[in-house]
Amino acid sequence: MPRLKAAIIGGGNIADKNHIPALKELSEQVEVVAICSRDIHKARALADKHSIALAFDNADEMYRSDSKPDLIINCTANNLHYPFTMRALENNCHVLCEKPPAISSREAREMAELAASKEKVLAYNFQLRQTPEYTLMNKCLASGQLGDIYHIKARFLRRRGIPGWGNFTNKTIQGGGALMDLGVHILDLALGLLDYRMPDKILANTYDFIGKAGGKGLMGSWDASKFEVEDACFAHLSFPNNASIELSTSFALNTKEQKNVNLEVFGTNAGAVLNPFSLYGELAGELTDTEFPYLEEIDIQLQNTKAFLNACNGQESNICTAEQGAILQEIIEKIYQSAEM
Amino acid sequence: MPRLKAAIIGGGNIADKNHIPALKELSEQVEVVAICSRDIHKARALADKHSIALAFDNADEMYRSDSKPDLIINCTANNLHYPFTMRALENNCHVLCEKPPAISSREAREMAELAASKEKVLAYNFQLRQTPEYTLMNKCLASGQLGDIYHIKARFLRRRGIPGWGNFTNKTIQGGGALMDLGVHILDLALGLLDYRMPDKILANTYDFIGKAGGKGLMGSWDASKFEVEDACFAHLSFPNNASIELSTSFALNTKEQKNVNLEVFGTNAGAVLNPFSLYGELAGELTDTEFPYLEEIDIQLQNTKAFLNACNGQESNICTAEQGAILQEIIEKIYQSAEM
Amino acid sequence: MPRLKAAIIGGGNIADKNHIPALKELSEQVEVVAICSRDIHKARALADKHSIALAFDNADEMYRSDSKPDLIINCTANNLHYPFTMRALENNCHVLCEKPPAISSREAREMAELAASKEKVLAYNFQLRQTPEYTLMNKCLASGQLGDIYHIKARFLRRRGIPGWGNFTNKTIQGGGALMDLGVHILDLALGLLDYRMPDKILANTYDFIGKAGGKGLMGSWDASKFEVEDACFAHLSFPNNASIELSTSFALNTKEQKNVNLEVFGTNAGAVLNPFSLYGELAGELTDTEFPYLEEIDIQLQNTKAFLNACNGQESNICTAEQGAILQEIIEKIYQSAEM
Amino acid sequence: MPRLKAAIIGGGNIADKNHIPALKELSEQVEVVAICSRDIHKARALADKHSIALAFDNADEMYRSDSKPDLIINCTANNLHYPFTMRALENNCHVLCEKPPAISSREAREMAELAASKEKVLAYNFQLRQTPEYTLMNKCLASGQLGDIYHIKARFLRRRGIPGWGNFTNKTIQGGGALMDLGVHILDLALGLLDYRMPDKILANTYDFIGKAGGKGLMGSWDASKFEVEDACFAHLSFPNNASIELSTSFALNTKEQKNVNLEVFGTNAGAVLNPFSLYGELAGELTDTEFPYLEEIDIQLQNTKAFLNACNGQESNICTAEQGAILQEIIEKIYQSAEM
Amino acid sequence: MPRLKAAIIGGGNIADKNHIPALKELSEQVEVVAICSRDIHKARALADKHSIALAFDNADEMYRSDSKPDLIINCTANNLHYPFTMRALENNCHVLCEKPPAISSREAREMAELAASKEKVLAYNFQLRQTPEYTLMNKCLASGQLGDIYHIKARFLRRRGIPGWGNFTNKTIQGGGALMDLGVHILDLALGLLDYRMPDKILANTYDFIGKAGGKGLMGSWDASKFEVEDACFAHLSFPNNASIELSTSFALNTKEQKNVNLEVFGTNAGAVLNPFSLYGELAGELTDTEFPYLEEIDIQLQNTKAFLNACNGQESNICTAEQGAILQEIIEKIYQSAEM
Amino acid sequence: MPRLKAAIIGGGNIADKNHIPALKELSEQVEVVAICSRDIHKARALADKHSIALAFDNADEMYRSDSKPDLIINCTANNLHYPFTMRALENNCHVLCEKPPAISSREAREMAELAASKEKVLAYNFQLRQTPEYTLMNKCLASGQLGDIYHIKARFLRRRGIPGWGNFTNKTIQGGGALMDLGVHILDLALGLLDYRMPDKILANTYDFIGKAGGKGLMGSWDASKFEVEDACFAHLSFPNNASIELSTSFALNTKEQKNVNLEVFGTNAGAVLNPFSLYGELAGELTDTEFPYLEEIDIQLQNTKAFLNACNGQESNICTAEQGAILQEIIEKIYQSAEM
Repeated sequence: MPRLKAAIIGGGNIADKNHIPALKELSEQVEVVAICSRDIHKARALADKHSIALAFDNADEMYRSDSKPDLIINCTANNLHYPFTMRALENNCHVLCEKPPAISSREAREMAELAASKEKVLAYNFQLRQTPEYTLMNKCLASGQLGDIYHIKARFLRRRGIPGWGNFTNKTIQGGGALMDLGVHILDLALGLLDYRMPDKILANTYDFIGKAGGKGLMGSWDASKFEVEDACFAHLSFPNNASIELSTSFALNTKEQKNVNLEVFGTNAGAVLNPFSLYGELAGELTDTEFPYLEEIDIQLQNTKAFLNACNGQESNICTAEQGAILQEIIEKIYQSAEM
Repeated sequence: MPRLKAAIIGGGNIADKNHIPALKELSEQVEVVAICSRDIHKARALADKHSIALAFDNADEMYRSDSKPDLIINCTANNLHYPFTMRALENNCHVLCEKPPAISSREAREMAELAASKEKVLAYNFQLRQTPEYTLMNKCLASGQLGDIYHIKARFLRRRGIPGWGNFTNKTIQGGGALMDLGVHILDLALGLLDYRMPDKILANTYDFIGKAGGKGLMGSWDASKFEVEDACFAHLSFPNNASIELSTSFALNTKEQKNVNLEVFGTNAGAVLNPFSLYGELAGELTDTEFPYLEEIDIQLQNTKAFLNACNGQESNICTAEQGAILQEIIEKIYQSAEM
Repeated sequence: MPRLKAAIIGGGNIADKNHIPALKELSEQVEVVAICSRDIHKARALADKHSIALAFDNADEMYRSDSKPDLIINCTANNLHYPFTMRALENNCHVLCEKPPAISSREAREMAELAASKEKVLAYNFQLRQTPEYTLMNKCLASGQLGDIYHIKARFLRRRGIPGWGNFTNKTIQGGGALMDLGVHILDLALGLLDYRMPDKILANTYDFIGKAGGKGLMGSWDASKFEVEDACFAHLSFPNNASIELSTSFALNTKEQKNVNLEVFGTNAGAVLNPFSLYGELAGELTDTEFPYLEEIDIQLQNTKAFLNACNGQESNICTAEQGAILQEIIEKIYQSAEM
Repeated sequence: MPRLKAAIIGGGNIADKNHIPALKELSEQVEVVAICSRDIHKARALADKHSIALAFDNADEMYRSDSKPDLIINCTANNLHYPFTMRALENNCHVLCEKPPAISSREAREMAELAASKEKVLAYNFQLRQTPEYTLMNKCLASGQLGDIYHIKARFLRRRGIPGWGNFTNKTIQGGGALMDLGVHILDLALGLLDYRMPDKILANTYDFIGKAGGKGLMGSWDASKFEVEDACFAHLSFPNNASIELSTSFALNTKEQKNVNLEVFGTNAGAVLNPFSLYGELAGELTDTEFPYLEEIDIQLQNTKAFLNACNGQESNICTAEQGAILQEIIEKIYQSAEM
Repeated sequence: MPRLKAAIIGGGNIADKNHIPALKELSEQVEVVAICSRDIHKARALADKHSIALAFDNADEMYRSDSKPDLIINCTANNLHYPFTMRALENNCHVLCEKPPAISSREAREMAELAASKEKVLAYNFQLRQTPEYTLMNKCLASGQLGDIYHIKARFLRRRGIPGWGNFTNKTIQGGGALMDLGVHILDLALGLLDYRMPDKILANTYDFIGKAGGKGLMGSWDASKFEVEDACFAHLSFPNNASIELSTSFALNTKEQKNVNLEVFGTNAGAVLNPFSLYGELAGELTDTEFPYLEEIDIQLQNTKAFLNACNGQESNICTAEQGAILQEIIEKIYQSAEM
Repeated sequence: MPRLKAAIIGGGNIADKNHIPALKELSEQVEVVAICSRDIHKARALADKHSIALAFDNADEMYRSDSKPDLIINCTANNLHYPFTMRALENNCHVLCEKPPAISSREAREMAELAASKEKVLAYNFQLRQTPEYTLMNKCLASGQLGDIYHIKARFLRRRGIPGWGNFTNKTIQGGGALMDLGVHILDLALGLLDYRMPDKILANTYDFIGKAGGKGLMGSWDASKFEVEDACFAHLSFPNNASIELSTSFALNTKEQKNVNLEVFGTNAGAVLNPFSLYGELAGELTDTEFPYLEEIDIQLQNTKAFLNACNGQESNICTAEQGAILQEIIEKIYQSAEM
């Protein structure tokens, strides 16, 4: 199988620390040929640091170059996911786009449609799918240990975790707050356990009290006067088959833990908790609590990049697909709509 | 102040163990004059045990007797709350009725209206209102420690707590399952922190998988073939002022704890957890976790009976009122309706 | 089924506190008609206390009386198990004999042979067989959870638990020390998991250093000058199918825990620990630790007496049989022989 | 004292990471002059890495060279311990040989005899002898704190620790499995506390169920189809003075801990546990538990190499001697013989 | 030895619950012949309850009666210890007086002098001397384990333990606050470890902020307006041999623990903590922490009453003597004087 | 503001690891121009390591040079604090002097007077003032959370922490032992909470038993034969306003913890503990325990150096002033005097 040519769009931290190292590790399958950033100096510095041949500040120029990539890693800001992904697909590139898929349902749907018509892989970088705990959860579901899952509590809560850097509080750029940045991860995991169906009923509330009031931050200080997004979101999703998800996510909330990321999954045969992975079931007529004390840590970005390359190569993959991304984005939009009513 | 004359209707455990001892303890304010049960032998045995003068198997006979009571403790089955309470009010008695208020919203509303027109106290026995933790929660709310409460997670979960006795799985008698028996308690507490407003939007799901499948019980064994009610209920309530409640209740659920009864309360100034009572706020520019290690246990039934007598005597009282009971019953009905849609 | 008539031989604590209450609880199946003790005053006092009709100080007299019993509970000292059990069998009584079966292999073998020829039930009171943990261990073995068991570590250790009363340090009466009194229990459990086979090789060591030196006791003080038995015994048993048991038992040993009673069971599919019951296996390709947090306590003497009555009535029973007792006693004897070589 | 000249035979990990760094640290007493490995490239690479002058792929050539060593560190595979050690002794070198001494009792005995006749030091690298805990155990024994030791439980257990590299499952090369690789360490420590006497009775069982079945590994994956050695061994050793050792060792066993390496030592005055070091005794008429919270970690290989050099220089040393190695190897052989009977 | 005749003076709780039951338990040595209280009804009720023959409301009458006691238990209020003890001694009775000895140094000194001249036993009821922990501390001191003690930290602290009953806040009756009621106990223990010497230098501070401010009580509510004594006292005592004691005692202090009663003892060989008893020393060249996990609880009042009777019978006794009581009272007085300067 | 020129006097560890890195970090405000040490080689090596231009072995030469410094960091031995600080002030330099201020009260007083007359900043490097815990303690005091502080327990205890290097046991150089080296830190913090008043009464004891006896060290080994200072000091300080401090400090003491550095602060409204910072108060009529789980670690030397530069620049600063240093030294002297009486 010939090596695929990859290009990075967006020169931020996530390109530098996550995507490029993962691609480099997979050098038998993929070669990073170019990096493209609005700021050509940034692009060049990053290219030098990682020994990448080309740097661009204009993606179209890159597509026209001799080193036209086969696949794009889209690491731009949320509101640029759509234009850069569309352009890449138009240029017949596979795309691994950072999460969330887009900032509107319409965008994500169009992106999925173009990918389909172009017969290119469009995928989203929900790397938490690759944790050993989530892999084990899926195995337990597949083997019938859990029975049918009918309720999930999904949480991604921070006590005072409004980032003091980047654009996390800017609604135009981010498209939203805690839900768009954090909740989206855990919602993706929960949906994955329910065949990624579309809920038929959603009720949600969003808040911004702490974000607008300001105070002590645990991820740097934020500017309360520029806080435009929700700092907390609580939603109930009900599915056509009567399954349900309770989603709770926050940048800031007066709760004990600094960070609380978890799924509680309730099935007809057993329940499970994601972190640390535990099963609550029955055996020999008695109730059981089962722990898995020896799960091994893995590099989840590396695994997710592998999964994307597998998809590009037509192999089995658990990557978040363009279609899943479109469903997810539609749910997010409906959560915001419910909260605004 | 002359002593009030009390009569008990219903000769079960809750009369014997909770209400009569509490009334006896308050003998300066109240005298138990009669006990009334469908089964006259049961009534008489209970009367003898507690040195109560009269035993009846017909309430109307009691109302016509010389010892006509001033107040009734209604300890009958859920579906008899309505007829016996209505009859007591018609006979100009105050009523302390066991929870839930009734088995339909219409019943609870009529009960409240009759009490109002008769100018009698109708109250419900939600004794968890009297725990030192809930009292402290209310004090912290009143003093501004919490700021405005905007979200509450309310839980009354049992892992395998379908009672193996009584009528807990019979829908006709009970009116419902976990929500009607357990969730109602914690929902009452949550509503009490939000001025007992009516939510304008409700989305809920109910389940009966474990109840119908049977298995190991931790409160005796139940007959899975006669399981007619929900074993779990999850609901999201959204209020006109954008506050929200997430309610989770179960008789049976594949979760770790045998029993998990709690409120997590999120306010603009601080958050609080009910059990054990804890505050999560800020002080001197730093985040604080505050515990209250010396709360004293109290006899909550005694306190609730006192609160009822205070209401009868026209004094301040934190008892659950007829109006609150009507609101609560309406919410329960809407939760069931949402789940059935 | 007519009620069986039971008589107690031996008027000590274990009759008073364990056997008579259990029999009384099972009064639908059995009636205690007499109690027999060397000391007629003791016999009479016990009979009065428990409302038993007859008291004897001579067993033969009892067998000749009108109230001849159907079954005997033999609660005499270890060295009297043999004569009183033989006499009871000769008188066509079933016998539930206290542990250990006897003080020599020959005795236990003769007792089993006589019971067989008389077609009477002879059983031994190893009540630890009835703990919920051992029941669960057997279920897990039967269901294949454990696979084949190939090694067991069996422990009944006390740090300073030489009883300061009774005859526990008298070799003539007891037949031995820690092994005869404590180890016998846990060895019975271990053998029960290995089809109660006879080991073909045994190597053991016994000690009496602390017993003879004296010192601080945690179960009263003992007289070091009269200490005639082993205070500790360590044995390795190897079975024809290559399974093995490591047995450790002590009255006194310089170890941390005051009391340590446990089985560690190693099977081809999983391992298990008896107290608290835990499984160590594999699930979904990962190693698991499973706890059973809700085992209910039960009255193990009551269960064992039931099991004996079941056997007497020809029903299925997990009581320690006469044949098992004979095997057990032979193993004990071989352990002592190995230690003396 | 002139510096000794050392040569390493065997170019594996243990030479690279343990022995050479220890020798380098002791450069005032010893100089590493050569490294010898079957693979000359490996030898040279290692020599370069550690600035060692000479590299050989033939030991005899080394002995003939100008830089003939005074001492040899034998880091070859188990089945090469014998030939390379014999050849070194014949060339009048002291030898520090990796553990186990050899793969048969006969080999270890011959090695000891040649060393004696050549008046050279032959020692084995049981570096656990140098842990602060074992040093302290010996001090407590010497000072009488423990009294006489009469029973030792010695454990070196892994739950799933069959190494996924090297030759650990190859019987021809290794001579055995868990006992030869792991148990030998803890047995050496136990024997050291009992004057390194020879037991007069041994009973043992060995198993290979998990090793042959395969499954999840915690030290890489192993090839179940090539598993030729025991995965677990349980042995009871009885000594002429009635002391006893219970030895348990495993590569794979269904037990809770991933790794459990310990000695429980029972003496007439007190008991002790090795890890963490604790004493269980009596003081002022009361039972005591004593901890030693401030033991300092040390470099145990460095200490063991020092001990070897002390022996070479005729100074006092606690290194495992050739004679001890021969006893140890004979015990191992008898354990295997007992298990095979 | 003939039985001693005892009389109780003072009809409060401590007579009823502590002293009379202890004397009754020791009925082979002592007979309670009379009880004397200001309130004759109280005296008679107590006498009836405990089957004591005589009740008086006038001690002199009792001394003149036929049943003249041999010994007196003085359970009166602090300010009555002196007159009733003096009168008892004048009547040739031994006296066991409740703590503190008196409310002034002069009183305690006179009491000791009269006891000496009358050759009667005067003792004080410091029953904490009889705890197994303090007994063990003394044994460790006597055996040299501790070496010479040079510093003691003595604490009897309560967070909010101002009793809501009795006269604990009345200076005239009690003579002082936390020091007089609580600190006196632990100071007695500390002095007992230093040969009950008299310190030559004392520096102290006392406070009453919380007592006078009022607030939440954990031993009932107190009347802040009548709080006349110290709520906390901190003192440093320096002895002629350079030993020192740091004494801290409080009825109310803003500290974590509800109650903290302890001694930290620093000796030249080892340190010790009283509760739970622990030793911090050296063994085999390493630092040790030693616990005593099996100390048995005992009835300390019974032991102290025994100790008093032993003293009356001229036997060895560890009771607090009249001379020790005089020293203790003098120290207390000097502490108060230092705090007032 | 022009950059200040700094010079270091004393070439030891504290210059190399603490002061120079802090100054380098603050290079916008300060430039290190020279380093001066008795040993010119040491001075030069340090200068080279940190890229400092000049090295001297004579301070006067430095003052005469072109690069005359504006400020001096005095890192000399305790007994040289006085001469080098006086000389620096005479040369019109600001001085940050290591702790303790000096070895006598007279020295520290003269230093303060000269600094005042020269209008130069003289400050002492008590860097524990900058911990987030102490900053928070001061905020809680300032905001009234604590009310008035009336008692402080101040501890800096080591179990076996006599340093095995430097001059810590040499009285001439150090001026004292644990108090001079360790206690001085925690005393400075305590005084800071009490407006740095002078106590009017002091009682203290000092000891040297362990130091002179020798034994196991946890900070290297010390030479018991050269131990000239106190290994432990206990003092009680009483202030004119009746506040009090209990100070305990040790190099060596038979206590559990290896190191115990803390303040317990008792105020009229609440108490506080420094490490980890906790508040014990009242809220809503209940007692509270408040933790601050998210305090961030900071570089305390950097903060203290900043505070010193602020003082030099006439800005607000919480540095230990010359006047405070003089008070502190006077207290230390009085503690030693009290102990010697």
